[in-house]
Amino acid sequence: MTSHPSLSLSGERFTAVYELSCGGAEAEARARDICLEQTVEFPEDLIPRQEIRDQIVGRIASLEPLGTDRFRTVIEYPVEAAGGELTQLVNVLFGNISIKPGVRLVRFELPDSLLAGYRGPRFGQAGLRERVGVRHRPLLCTAIKPMGLSPEELAELTYRLALGGIDLIKDDHGLADQPFCRFGPRVERCGDAVHRANSQTGLSCLYLPNVTGPSDRIMDRARQAKQAGAGGLLFSPGLAGLDAMRCLADDDDLSLPILSHPAFQGPFTMRTGEGISHGALYGQLNRLAGADAAIFPNYGGRFSFTEQECRDIVDGCTRPMGAMRPIFPVPAGGMSVQRAPELCEFYGRDSILLVGGDLHRHGPDLTENCRRFVQLVEQAAGQG
Amino acid sequence: MTSHPSLSLSGERFTAVYELSCGGAEAEARARDICLEQTVEFPEDLIPRQEIRDQIVGRIASLEPLGTDRFRTVIEYPVEAAGGELTQLVNVLFGNISIKPGVRLVRFELPDSLLAGYRGPRFGQAGLRERVGVRHRPLLCTAIKPMGLSPEELAELTYRLALGGIDLIKDDHGLADQPFCRFGPRVERCGDAVHRANSQTGLSCLYLPNVTGPSDRIMDRARQAKQAGAGGLLFSPGLAGLDAMRCLADDDDLSLPILSHPAFQGPFTMRTGEGISHGALYGQLNRLAGADAAIFPNYGGRFSFTEQECRDIVDGCTRPMGAMRPIFPVPAGGMSVQRAPELCEFYGRDSILLVGGDLHRHGPDLTENCRRFVQLVEQAAGQG
Repeated sequence: MTSHPSLSLSGERFTAVYELSCGGAEAEARARDICLEQTVEFPEDLIPRQEIRDQIVGRIASLEPLGTDRFRTVIEYPVEAAGGELTQLVNVLFGNISIKPGVRLVRFELPDSLLAGYRGPRFGQAGLRERVGVRHRPLLCTAIKPMGLSPEELAELTYRLALGGIDLIKDDHGLADQPFCRFGPRVERCGDAVHRANSQTGLSCLYLPNVTGPSDRIMDRARQAKQAGAGGLLFSPGLAGLDAMRCLADDDDLSLPILSHPAFQGPFTMRTGEGISHGALYGQLNRLAGADAAIFPNYGGRFSFTEQECRDIVDGCTRPMGAMRPIFPVPAGGMSVQRAPELCEFYGRDSILLVGGDLHRHGPDLTENCRRFVQLVEQAAGQG
Repeated sequence: MTSHPSLSLSGERFTAVYELSCGGAEAEARARDICLEQTVEFPEDLIPRQEIRDQIVGRIASLEPLGTDRFRTVIEYPVEAAGGELTQLVNVLFGNISIKPGVRLVRFELPDSLLAGYRGPRFGQAGLRERVGVRHRPLLCTAIKPMGLSPEELAELTYRLALGGIDLIKDDHGLADQPFCRFGPRVERCGDAVHRANSQTGLSCLYLPNVTGPSDRIMDRARQAKQAGAGGLLFSPGLAGLDAMRCLADDDDLSLPILSHPAFQGPFTMRTGEGISHGALYGQLNRLAGADAAIFPNYGGRFSFTEQECRDIVDGCTRPMGAMRPIFPVPAGGMSVQRAPELCEFYGRDSILLVGGDLHRHGPDLTENCRRFVQLVEQAAGQG
């Protein structure tokens, strides 16, 4: 080996909590394996210098049984290993280990020095409330759909939904730049529609177009959306990358609230002993990547999340993470207007209730259906 | 509703094959659910126009039992739904459905009209062989590591590995832009080292630095890498997005082979009845996104893929996909030099064998260890 400068790292560490599914005899070796796999990825006995062993390799801070063949371990990694970038932070937390069975990332804690490298949510709960001018109840969100409608038809829907008092109107996440509904004309017309409605209602409904798309077009689409009067953005980090969302959130010229959509992220939370916890994925990672609100499938809808898993997401959206703002949980996925009181009760006022198709089910007057939805939520939140 | 132009889609469809885990009574409803969820995401009875039902909604082409409580269904989607972009194609294939239990994306088939929108691998097997000048045996790959070494030390490793006849030397995927080993100095020195070795050996070893990183820095890093003499790029699409890899592959000025790393993609293939098949994820999707070679954990290493799953990856890397080039499978993950003959037998000559730490285990002379590895593979490939 050539001569080398001493590593002299700060000694500061960030921690990840993992659950392990294995027998007691294996647990310590499994925890130790994570320490190596997520850092040096090299046989321990071949690590060329003691300072790498001491300063780079992860360190087991604790290892405790959770029940039969289940353990919880806390691993500490040097902040420098995460290199000041989200992709590498996620890589250290769960890159290679994601491929090994029986390891679940449950939570992570970053010291202020590491958090300082991330702006996180630009608006968060308080900022988004301010933008829509709603203080004391859950915000109400819906999507314009179905795919196959023209920009004019989607704009008409946007107008009628905004007129009914919905706070946030997002593109369905499957609306991209299809030949039958181009991104440009869609955002132009829907942006106009929401402003037309707002000027009639005096409200501040936001239109959030979907800017998930080719890596080299995302920022252009977001700028085009803002130009057209969009009040926020919809983005699917599972499809286009968490860090691409961070770029949108960090852009000072753009300065728009971001609603994160869970498309393509399902396998991460599918099994309890593997993947990433609901709270860490939909809460903590979304937040670190700058989302102001995180859509997820509510319990009892078309999907299969449990009440406990939904609570975990609320926790990830709101638990202390340095100075990072809390963000809104957005339960969705086949929600109905009738469930509004129950959801208000379960999530409290600091949530966004997203109802899609069901708004269209309560009679032909969409605007009237929205008004009923708003009323129901205001009543449930004690404002009725 | 306002007046609207007719949809008049081409009628061309792409297909996705899914496996369903459910009872026989449910199977058809589950398949139908995919048709709706992945396109209109709207209650069927509320779809506002018949042409949307006919032209946009997915269509069940077949549904067959596979065994007890398992079914295989082929769903056809309109090519226009995928909108000419990879993010939306992936969204239609497995966006929301990824969140529902008991659905696995097994394979997909795109018609030429859709494939025409994707360049795919710029080099593929033949092009990469040409770059390294190796015709009749598997290519040999290794990684420079562990994290914690300085750019100078990594360059020294690169030099010794290249001198020993390794074809492809990649950064360990955990080398990003850490303070103890900055991206710039690393690629400068390692680029120099590989050229120095090549001028001595007359070989064409390639150095492939890791350009996985912040969304807005990836292209800069790739250009910087090329400038420094890198002969290819390492990229983790699970961390930074499949479409970001496509951007790298499509860039004519860059024009560098891309090696895809599986970090953070583990949960997709973890369970047989859910997620995405190994072949579709590591083979087809990597290929569509422009990778020339796909790293995956080989059977019998540190990870848990089976022989059958590895064969499925080979299939996804090489099966006909229009005019798209076949790419190299790169079995890795704790491989040993001694297993080279077995791997040559299993994967045949059209593979890249990636051995990391084990190269360091066979005596202090790394260059000599590499030569032995090359020799072993040449013998196994019938060239000894």
